[in-house]
Amino acid sequence: MKEISTICAIATAAGHGAIAVIRLSGDEAITITDKVFRSPSGKKLAGQKPNTIHFGSIADNHEIIDEVLVSLFKAPYSYTGEDVVEISCHGSGYIQQQILQLLIKTGAEMAKPGEFTMRAFFNGKMDLSQAEAVADIISGESKASHDMAINQIRGGFSTEIHILRSKLLDFCSLLELELDFSEEDVEFADRTQLKANLDEIQIHLDKLVKSFSLGNVLKNGVPVAIVGRPNVGKSTLLNSLLQEEKAIVSEIAGTTRDVIEDVINIDGIEFRFIDTAGIRHTTDKIESMGIERTFAKIEQARIILLLVEASQTVEDIKKQIEEISPSPDQLLIVVVNKIDLITDNNLETLLGGSNGFAPCPTLFLSAKRHINTHALNELLLSTVKDSNVQPGDIVVSNARHYEALSKALEATIRADEGLTNGLASDLVAQDIREVLYYLSEITGEIATNEILGNIFSKFCIGK
Amino acid sequence: MKEISTICAIATAAGHGAIAVIRLSGDEAITITDKVFRSPSGKKLAGQKPNTIHFGSIADNHEIIDEVLVSLFKAPYSYTGEDVVEISCHGSGYIQQQILQLLIKTGAEMAKPGEFTMRAFFNGKMDLSQAEAVADIISGESKASHDMAINQIRGGFSTEIHILRSKLLDFCSLLELELDFSEEDVEFADRTQLKANLDEIQIHLDKLVKSFSLGNVLKNGVPVAIVGRPNVGKSTLLNSLLQEEKAIVSEIAGTTRDVIEDVINIDGIEFRFIDTAGIRHTTDKIESMGIERTFAKIEQARIILLLVEASQTVEDIKKQIEEISPSPDQLLIVVVNKIDLITDNNLETLLGGSNGFAPCPTLFLSAKRHINTHALNELLLSTVKDSNVQPGDIVVSNARHYEALSKALEATIRADEGLTNGLASDLVAQDIREVLYYLSEITGEIATNEILGNIFSKFCIGK
Repeated sequence: MKEISTICAIATAAGHGAIAVIRLSGDEAITITDKVFRSPSGKKLAGQKPNTIHFGSIADNHEIIDEVLVSLFKAPYSYTGEDVVEISCHGSGYIQQQILQLLIKTGAEMAKPGEFTMRAFFNGKMDLSQAEAVADIISGESKASHDMAINQIRGGFSTEIHILRSKLLDFCSLLELELDFSEEDVEFADRTQLKANLDEIQIHLDKLVKSFSLGNVLKNGVPVAIVGRPNVGKSTLLNSLLQEEKAIVSEIAGTTRDVIEDVINIDGIEFRFIDTAGIRHTTDKIESMGIERTFAKIEQARIILLLVEASQTVEDIKKQIEEISPSPDQLLIVVVNKIDLITDNNLETLLGGSNGFAPCPTLFLSAKRHINTHALNELLLSTVKDSNVQPGDIVVSNARHYEALSKALEATIRADEGLTNGLASDLVAQDIREVLYYLSEITGEIATNEILGNIFSKFCIGK
Repeated sequence: MKEISTICAIATAAGHGAIAVIRLSGDEAITITDKVFRSPSGKKLAGQKPNTIHFGSIADNHEIIDEVLVSLFKAPYSYTGEDVVEISCHGSGYIQQQILQLLIKTGAEMAKPGEFTMRAFFNGKMDLSQAEAVADIISGESKASHDMAINQIRGGFSTEIHILRSKLLDFCSLLELELDFSEEDVEFADRTQLKANLDEIQIHLDKLVKSFSLGNVLKNGVPVAIVGRPNVGKSTLLNSLLQEEKAIVSEIAGTTRDVIEDVINIDGIEFRFIDTAGIRHTTDKIESMGIERTFAKIEQARIILLLVEASQTVEDIKKQIEEISPSPDQLLIVVVNKIDLITDNNLETLLGGSNGFAPCPTLFLSAKRHINTHALNELLLSTVKDSNVQPGDIVVSNARHYEALSKALEATIRADEGLTNGLASDLVAQDIREVLYYLSEITGEIATNEILGNIFSKFCIGK
């Protein structure tokens, strides 16, 4: 067996800071540190208690590199489950590099991306879904993405998967036991109970699979496309929402040729706004490219804001809704802009229908004068908040988990159907084994080197 | 007396990292942390031993922000000399901000720049010159600047000043005691011994003052100007030294109009290279501006590299040396470029003088073909290394210290002269008091709020 090396890396963000932390993990973590650490009292770290902090200096022979604090953690009670040393030094890039080079010279190896967390996974400190959440929590910059990640790190999702698995595992064993007695035609597994269980799991898996649509937008932001005829005020609306002037605002129709994407955080949830070129028939080449891109962007959006002017006719607006023809997954919101410029007559025409352009929610506002724009904020927020998800509910935000859950759901349905149709026990057992397989893939009980490599290569070095 | 607040700040560099550290200092550091910290076992931090690490989570009521490690330090055995808590959390910007805001909500105050170190100074954990070195060590990016800072942090300079002071202090007291007995014409202070002491101190101060010239360049880099006629290969030489293509290199004379400054680290010492427009008479306006700037830059340089071509005449080169007319502080090095293109005849002309353009050191090389460029590296390095400074010698690199030392030196000379000329004891004592005053200013025994404000405002927040 290959000996496991002791790894080291800078764990804090790059650049100047008051302090920086360099982390070592492995059997030799303490021994290597002892070779370069000088305590004022001459004591060695090896003899010290775990979870203690020690002042001293790091020196390359007689050359002092820095005065530091060293934190000691001993296996298995550490992040990685191995012996871990954290060296807290002054935050200059020079010192960080010098200490790192000295540790490597003294026998440590430079850690690969995510290697600390990978070791934590291999040593059973966390399952794979928790390890993945570590990367998510570091990159998460909104409350929604953070809350999902911290829940996952703390094992919420893992517990859910564990419960689903254990419910099936016993039945599967009983079904397989029957095979050994196949000539005697016994039934160890209670079919009624198994069916009830499969139904329950099916409902549960279905809920998790469906939560991905929400989880994905909570993690990556809700894509919102703003569309409409030229000069209805798309850029102004975007600016009004962003409360800053990033897009070009001009009186000349068709100036917003580029698809500008900006992120606005409403109540902890990120909305990615896509401002688009106006939809209209044109012979201008660059403009047509913009319109083509508009339709491509509309397809990616979860919410489409159709911006119209109060002076447009109801027929024209209805025609635009038809042109956009949102998919069942998309929500089209009609936003009637420039209500400050409206004549009573036009406004009445629009308000006459009472429900606006139902089933599309309809809002009346002035982007330029900031009239009623908060109502749009609230409406956007409600599209995410009303998703039948209660606080504490598990929401799937990881595409790999979504895929595994989808496959587990398919296999559950097959097993359920097999049971209903009186399929042979071994075939039903095979389907249930498949469900178990996909659930294990999520938590990492079953994980190929390719899957692991793929997951941990996306981590930063030092984590 | 105003109660001293408990301060908090992010101590690690900004941006994503595997981990980040948030630091608290003050009487309430542990109490405040206990209000937001949840240990798995329910234990409180207040009862724990100093220099220990505790796993748990940070929560705002029931909302978990992150799982963290908390390090405890108790007064006076901490960086600031107060109770200190360091919270090591996941390195996302969102989490860092959330924890910081929670701590502030719970009673901590946002730390001002350098406030942790200022508290360390006020609590006698370090003197002012050591505190200043903390800022230097964080910003130092070369071995030379780092070595000076770590020496200063470890008290090397402070000890030096302390020795100088204590030598004078006794004499000063004795001189002042004589004043009380002025009618009796007694001499408590041995004049011969005092004079010997003043001479010794004078030599010492003189050495320290003179070391600033070196210390300053070690800290900020050695300014080197490259000058010469157009097209002699200034940019090529710079590139050859930098070993990368940053400056424009072209066959057309006079293309390097901008003063390009680049830093090259030779053996731990930074050299700031200034590539200049060629020196020649021109009517081109932009070019004349470049030449004007060249002369301005030459004045700031410590080393001037006069780059000439082997095909130029000895008279022409001597004329250029005259034009530059280096000051006594500056070293002019004549670099004869393009030796790969030289005819035997020309080369002989130059070599005929045996000592080149003595007293200016003369080097023959080809920047383009990288012939003998290493000799230039070595020559540049020797200008700094040959400064009579031995390893371990104290080198002054701080302008404030330089000013105080210069004033102390002046007062020492006055006291010495006064003693020689039989000046009244009280006047000599006054001069010696002045020496003591300026020495105290360096270590901060005497420091106005203005001086302190000026020093600590340059620190980053969190240090």
